Amino acid sequence: MTPLLKEIRVNPLLWLLALVPVVLVTNALEPEAHTLLFLLSVAAIVPLATLLSRATESVASKTGDTIGGLLNATLGNLTELLIALAALHAGQYVLVKASIAGAIVTNALFMLGASLLVGGLNHHVQEYNRNSARLQAGLLFLATVAMLVPSVLAETDTTAKSAQLTQTLSAGLSVLLIVTYALGLFFSLGTHREFFGSADHSESKEAEWPLSLALATLAAVTVLVAFVSEIFVESVQEAAKALGLSPAFVGFIIVALVGGAAEMVSALSAARKNRLDLSVGIALGSAVQIALFVAPVLVLLSYLIGPTPMDLQFWRGVVAMMIIATMTASLVTNTGRSAWFIGALVVIVYLIFGMTLYLLPPRV
Amino acid sequence: MTPLLKEIRVNPLLWLLALVPVVLVTNALEPEAHTLLFLLSVAAIVPLATLLSRATESVASKTGDTIGGLLNATLGNLTELLIALAALHAGQYVLVKASIAGAIVTNALFMLGASLLVGGLNHHVQEYNRNSARLQAGLLFLATVAMLVPSVLAETDTTAKSAQLTQTLSAGLSVLLIVTYALGLFFSLGTHREFFGSADHSESKEAEWPLSLALATLAAVTVLVAFVSEIFVESVQEAAKALGLSPAFVGFIIVALVGGAAEMVSALSAARKNRLDLSVGIALGSAVQIALFVAPVLVLLSYLIGPTPMDLQFWRGVVAMMIIATMTASLVTNTGRSAWFIGALVVIVYLIFGMTLYLLPPRV
Amino acid sequence: MTPLLKEIRVNPLLWLLALVPVVLVTNALEPEAHTLLFLLSVAAIVPLATLLSRATESVASKTGDTIGGLLNATLGNLTELLIALAALHAGQYVLVKASIAGAIVTNALFMLGASLLVGGLNHHVQEYNRNSARLQAGLLFLATVAMLVPSVLAETDTTAKSAQLTQTLSAGLSVLLIVTYALGLFFSLGTHREFFGSADHSESKEAEWPLSLALATLAAVTVLVAFVSEIFVESVQEAAKALGLSPAFVGFIIVALVGGAAEMVSALSAARKNRLDLSVGIALGSAVQIALFVAPVLVLLSYLIGPTPMDLQFWRGVVAMMIIATMTASLVTNTGRSAWFIGALVVIVYLIFGMTLYLLPPRV
Repeated sequence: MTPLLKEIRVNPLLWLLALVPVVLVTNALEPEAHTLLFLLSVAAIVPLATLLSRATESVASKTGDTIGGLLNATLGNLTELLIALAALHAGQYVLVKASIAGAIVTNALFMLGASLLVGGLNHHVQEYNRNSARLQAGLLFLATVAMLVPSVLAETDTTAKSAQLTQTLSAGLSVLLIVTYALGLFFSLGTHREFFGSADHSESKEAEWPLSLALATLAAVTVLVAFVSEIFVESVQEAAKALGLSPAFVGFIIVALVGGAAEMVSALSAARKNRLDLSVGIALGSAVQIALFVAPVLVLLSYLIGPTPMDLQFWRGVVAMMIIATMTASLVTNTGRSAWFIGALVVIVYLIFGMTLYLLPPRV
Repeated sequence: MTPLLKEIRVNPLLWLLALVPVVLVTNALEPEAHTLLFLLSVAAIVPLATLLSRATESVASKTGDTIGGLLNATLGNLTELLIALAALHAGQYVLVKASIAGAIVTNALFMLGASLLVGGLNHHVQEYNRNSARLQAGLLFLATVAMLVPSVLAETDTTAKSAQLTQTLSAGLSVLLIVTYALGLFFSLGTHREFFGSADHSESKEAEWPLSLALATLAAVTVLVAFVSEIFVESVQEAAKALGLSPAFVGFIIVALVGGAAEMVSALSAARKNRLDLSVGIALGSAVQIALFVAPVLVLLSYLIGPTPMDLQFWRGVVAMMIIATMTASLVTNTGRSAWFIGALVVIVYLIFGMTLYLLPPRV
Repeated sequence: MTPLLKEIRVNPLLWLLALVPVVLVTNALEPEAHTLLFLLSVAAIVPLATLLSRATESVASKTGDTIGGLLNATLGNLTELLIALAALHAGQYVLVKASIAGAIVTNALFMLGASLLVGGLNHHVQEYNRNSARLQAGLLFLATVAMLVPSVLAETDTTAKSAQLTQTLSAGLSVLLIVTYALGLFFSLGTHREFFGSADHSESKEAEWPLSLALATLAAVTVLVAFVSEIFVESVQEAAKALGLSPAFVGFIIVALVGGAAEMVSALSAARKNRLDLSVGIALGSAVQIALFVAPVLVLLSYLIGPTPMDLQFWRGVVAMMIIATMTASLVTNTGRSAWFIGALVVIVYLIFGMTLYLLPPRV
C-alpha cells in the first residue's frame, strides 16, 4: 500500500478521503440530516474521483497502449456515470439530464477557460497545436449536435403518441451515438493513433502503481463512489430545497464540478506547465465522451434500472447553453494562441450561465 | 448518337433509363397505383438527372468559359428545380419547401460527409486548399442566413395582415437573393475567376459530346424529367401515406437525394481521387445555388404557376437543421485536413436528422 | 479656433453642423412638428458625432497612451450612449434596447461589410492580419454571448416573481459585464498592449488639436448632442408613426447608423487605404464596447434616471440577429483575405435584417 499512502501524502485533495467514513456513518445515524449529508457527500466524492482517475491511469499504463487507451476513454468519466446511475435508479431524470448537460458545458467552458486563465497568468502568451485543438473542437461540435438533434428539431408536443415516438427516437439515437463512440475509439486508438499520441494524461512523472494495487483501488473506490452517490442523490432533493437551489442547478453546476474535479486538476496543472495541448485535449475529450458515451449509456440503462425509460430531450435553454459552449470552444481554440483575458472571458460566460440557472432555473 | 450510347454503356446508373418508359406506361395504364408509380418515378429520375448534368457540362464546355460557367451554375440544380416546379404547380408547398431545405442540408452535410468518408477510406489523411474551402463555406453560411432571416426573425403570427406582410417580405427577399446570385456569378466568372478556376466538374477526361447532341439531349431530358416529376408529385401524397412517410420527410430526404444523385457521383469520384477541393466545391457550391437561385425562383414563379403565392417561411426545426448543416460545413473544412472519422461523423449527423424527421416530422 | 475651422472646411460632413441651431430653433418655435424635428435631429447628430469622435481622439493623443486608450475606449460610443440616455430618461425602453442590439449588429455586419466592399472595390484581393481579427471576433462573440445569456435561457414567464428575478439577474449581469470590460482594458492597455498597438484610429496624419480646444469641444459638443438627442427622442414616437416605422426599426437601424457615422467614416477610409486591420478593429471593437460597457451602464443608470429599472432581456428575433452578426464576423474574418463580393454579401445580410424589421417588427 505504500504508493497509495505516498500519493495521499503528496496530494492534499486526498486528505478529504477522511470524509468518506464520516458520510457513511452520518447516513446510518442521521438519515434525515439531508443538508449535512448533501454537503458531506459532495465533499467526499471529490477525493474519490481523484483516486479513481489515478487508478484508471495506472491500470491503463500497465496494459499497453490500446487497452489502456480504451480504459482511459471508458472510465474517464466514471464518477459522473456513477452519480448519474444513482439518480437514474431513483428516477430523478431532471438531475440526470442536468448533469449530462452540465458536464459538457463545464468541460468545454469552465475547464477550458480556467486552463487558459491559469496558463495565461503564468505565461504571457501561450501557443499550442491548433490543428489538434481544431480537430477536438470539431469532434465536440459534431458530437454535441448529434446528441441534440432531437431536442432541437422536435416541437414540444405532449400527446401520448408523440411521447412514445420521442422515446423510440432517443433509444435509436443512443445506439447510433455508441456506435459513433466505438468508431471514434477505432480511429483514435487504431487507424490514426499518431494524431492522439500526446493525449497522455498522466504526464508519466508520477510513480506508477503496481497493477494489483491499481485494480484493487479501482474496484474498491468504484464501490465507495456508488455508495456515496446514492447518499448524495437521496439527500439532494431536500437539501436543494433547504439551500434554495433547483435540481437543474445542482445537476448542471455542482454534480458537473464535483465529478470533473480530478480532470480539472490535471488540466490546470498542464496549463501551468505551458502544455495547453494537453489541457485542451482533456477538457474537450471529456466533453465528447459525455455526449457520445455517458449520455446514451444512461438512456439505454434507464430501460433496465430506471422506473421508466428516459429520453434524450433537453430543455430549450440548456440546449442553447450546450451549443454556445461548443461554439465557444471552437472559436477560442481556433487560433492556437491564448492569453489570460481569453480564459477570463470564457470563465465569465460560465459564471453567467451559473447565475442565470440559479435565478431562473428551467421549468421542467 | 454514338457518344450517348457509349456513355450509357460505361455508366451503369444510366441503365435505369429503361425505367423511364416503364413509368410513363404504368402511369397511363394504372394511374391509381400510387406506391408503384412513386417508386418507379424516383428510380427513373436518377439516370435522367445524371444525363442532364452530363449534357449541361457538354454544352458548357463548347460555349466558352463565361457562358459555360453560367450554364453550369444555372442548370446545375435543374432536376431539383423541375421536381419543385411540379410540386409548386400542384400547390404542394410543404414538399417544395422541404425539398429546398433538404437540398441544402443534403449537399452541405451528406455529400460533404460522404466525400470525406470515401476519400478517407482511400487515403490516410487528405489535405486540401483550406482557403478556397473557407471561402465556399463562408458564402454558404451567408447565403443560407440571407434566405433564412425572415424565418428566424418573424414570430409566428397568424393574422391576415401579418400573412400579407410575410408574403411581401418573401417576394422582396427573393428579388434580393437573385440579385446576390447574379453578383456572385459576376464575381466567380468575371472579376475573380482565377479563384474558381479549378471548379471544373467534368474533369475533362470524358469524351466531349458534339454541341448539337448535347443541346438535343438537354432539351429532351428536361421534358422527360418534367413528365416524370409530374407523375412523382401526383403519386407522392398517397404513396407516402401508404409507406408511412410524411411529405416533409419525402421532400427533405428523398427528393434531395434523388435530385442530387448526379453531383453526388462526381463529388465521390473526385474524393476517391484525392481531389477534395473539387468535392467540397461541388457540395457547397450546389447548396449555395439552392439558397440564392432555386429557392427565390420558386417563390417568384409561385405567383405565375402556383395556386397561391408561396412564402419563404420555414419551420423552426428545419431552420435549425439548415443552420447546423452550414456551420458544420464551416467547422469541418476549416482545417483543410480530413480523415475518415470526420466524414463518418458528418454522415452520422445527417442520419440523425433523417431519423428524427422520419419519427417526428414537423407539424405544418 | 483655427484647427477646428480648418477641420470643418476639409470635412464636408461637418457642414451639417449648420443644422444644429436649426433644430434647436425649430424645436422652440414648432415643438409639434415631430416629423421635421425627427429628420432634422437625425441629420444634426451626424456631424456632432464626427466632431465628438475627433475631439476624443485629440484629447487621447495628448494624454499619453494609457489614459488616451482609456478615453478612446470609454468615449468611443459616446453618441450612442447619449441618445440611449435620453430615451432611458423618457422610459422608451424599446428604443433603448433596439439601439443596443442595432449598434452591435450595425458595427459587426454593416460597418464590417461596407469596409470589405469599399476595400474590395479599390483592391483586387485584400490581405490582413487574421490573428488579430480572430482575437477581436472571438472577443465579440464572447461579449455578445455574455450579454445575451439571460435572453437565451430564460423562458418567457410573465409572473411578477419571475419579472423580479429577471431584473435581479440583469443588474448582476451588468456588474459582471462592466468588470469584464475593466479587465479587458487592463488587458489591452496594460498587460498585452503590444497586440493592440495598431488600433490607432486617428492615423495621425491630421493636424492635432491643442488640448484646451479638444477638451472644450468635447464638453460643448457633448452638451449639444444631449440636447439634440432629447429633441430626437421626444419627436421619434410621433414621427415614426407618421413615417410608418416601428420604434424597433428606428432604434435598430436609424439610431445605430446615426450614432456610428463617425466610426463608419474612419473604417471606410482605412479600408480604401488597404488597411483592413484597422477597419476590422474599429468595427468589432466598437461592437464589443456596446455589449460590455454601454449596455450594462444603461441598465445600471436606469435605476437612477429611468422611470422603472430596465432589464437586459431582448426579443427572440433580435437575439438571433446579434448572434448571427457575431458569427458572420467570425467566419468572414477567419481567413484574413477578402474581395468585394464577401463585403457585398455581408451588407446584403444586413439589408435583409433591415427589410425584415421594417415589415415585421418584433411585437413588444
